[in-house]
Amino acid sequence: MTVTTQVRVRYAETDQMGVVYYANYLVWFELGRVEFLRTLGFDYSLMESVEGCILPVVEASCRYRSPARYDDPIRIEAFPLLLRGSVLKFGYRILRESDSGVTLLAEGETVHVVCDRSMQRRALPDPVAGLIRSAIAEHNAK
Amino acid sequence: MTVTTQVRVRYAETDQMGVVYYANYLVWFELGRVEFLRTLGFDYSLMESVEGCILPVVEASCRYRSPARYDDPIRIEAFPLLLRGSVLKFGYRILRESDSGVTLLAEGETVHVVCDRSMQRRALPDPVAGLIRSAIAEHNAK
Amino acid sequence: MTVTTQVRVRYAETDQMGVVYYANYLVWFELGRVEFLRTLGFDYSLMESVEGCILPVVEASCRYRSPARYDDPIRIEAFPLLLRGSVLKFGYRILRESDSGVTLLAEGETVHVVCDRSMQRRALPDPVAGLIRSAIAEHNAK
Amino acid sequence: MTVTTQVRVRYAETDQMGVVYYANYLVWFELGRVEFLRTLGFDYSLMESVEGCILPVVEASCRYRSPARYDDPIRIEAFPLLLRGSVLKFGYRILRESDSGVTLLAEGETVHVVCDRSMQRRALPDPVAGLIRSAIAEHNAK
Repeated sequence: MTVTTQVRVRYAETDQMGVVYYANYLVWFELGRVEFLRTLGFDYSLMESVEGCILPVVEASCRYRSPARYDDPIRIEAFPLLLRGSVLKFGYRILRESDSGVTLLAEGETVHVVCDRSMQRRALPDPVAGLIRSAIAEHNAK
Repeated sequence: MTVTTQVRVRYAETDQMGVVYYANYLVWFELGRVEFLRTLGFDYSLMESVEGCILPVVEASCRYRSPARYDDPIRIEAFPLLLRGSVLKFGYRILRESDSGVTLLAEGETVHVVCDRSMQRRALPDPVAGLIRSAIAEHNAK
Repeated sequence: MTVTTQVRVRYAETDQMGVVYYANYLVWFELGRVEFLRTLGFDYSLMESVEGCILPVVEASCRYRSPARYDDPIRIEAFPLLLRGSVLKFGYRILRESDSGVTLLAEGETVHVVCDRSMQRRALPDPVAGLIRSAIAEHNAK
Repeated sequence: MTVTTQVRVRYAETDQMGVVYYANYLVWFELGRVEFLRTLGFDYSLMESVEGCILPVVEASCRYRSPARYDDPIRIEAFPLLLRGSVLKFGYRILRESDSGVTLLAEGETVHVVCDRSMQRRALPDPVAGLIRSAIAEHNAK
């Protein structure tokens, strides 16, 4: 199961090379991750404030294939890759949609440790854990 | 009393026009404001965490005179303009230093309401209030 | 004529006070401004690259009424206030939409000088100038 | 040869978890990289504008060990790891300095392809290439 989020490149996200500054792809990854959880029925802002369940990032990586430019329509694809104990891994693909087709701009992963409010490892709450496991199984079956 | 902070323009702060994106001047204002308080002997991070005294911004403005470019050495000048009850106003000047002299890049102001943790208005703690009043008097006397 | 753009607050836009960092409202203003031009039929990225017509900001201001929080659905309203020679002024309202109604979060203005590629003042190209004048007349008639 | 850059965590760099937002470490990596080149005698802004030699990022990764907090004094260490043809790889360590010692906050790498203005691969200009090769040899000898 892959969840898709659409954004347009903001002027603030470009740099003087005329392309999107490289750190901003990690912001897009986060937008995709949050929409993925929302699609499963989980609101990350409530998970954090009500359940006290937070997902700090312990690892992030990105391979940049082709630059994104100002005002480009961007498609963010996010999908879970692994859930083992408190460790949760997401994958991402960043694409540009245009009349001439879809171009892959970047790919990446983030690894998270599920924590409680005092930053101790905990398990992911049950309904979301099961749904993420199903999504991983589905993704691997493709 | 004016406190001066030095920064260099970061690549991330430029946009595709090849100049610093306009919102980033407000980030620089904040750096200047914090260094101003530090010079008075007040650490804003402690004021916030220990004293529960926060300074949310209720108004900000900036006039842009000349663009800042990547790697420019920037001088941020910050000085208090007014302290009346819970209302605190700062002024800022952003300058570029180069061999050919100093250029004014931007000027601005921010207005803050001194608040406690529950976002209720409160007075500024006493030693800092007195020191800011002296700094304002000194600034006005120039 | 007011053009409305919808965004959701990004995690990256919050700060440790738990609210949107004050400089990010200027980023939202820009999103509103660009959508306003797009609604008139003008693509700012083409105006800049093809026509060589750029709109550097010479002044920006914002009054903050109520804080925006992570994941809030935000409505950006943008409308032109003035076009005189090369000077173009926009107004903005930032609102939060929720089940309990709409809350005004911030209001502001930006002033721009229409420039060519070599940063010399020029007039706004004709169709867009006329359309903006009509939008201003309509806004003032309300 | 490792070059060290000092920054303080900006309020704008924190998020509502009370720590530095994860994408900002890539901004710090870039500050370290630029200071590394400056120490070798190369001004990246001149390399880009005068020599037409740019270093787009094709890969970036970061492992987060311990969170950085507002106003923390941060030490960025940058060092070259590899130069083969047009491919240049840098390593980074992000540390916090305090009275109680130095804490490793994050480590990472970026991979760049040296390009000319038309984004074609080219070799790194000669004096800088030689100096980087010496720095790599020195780093590996440690």
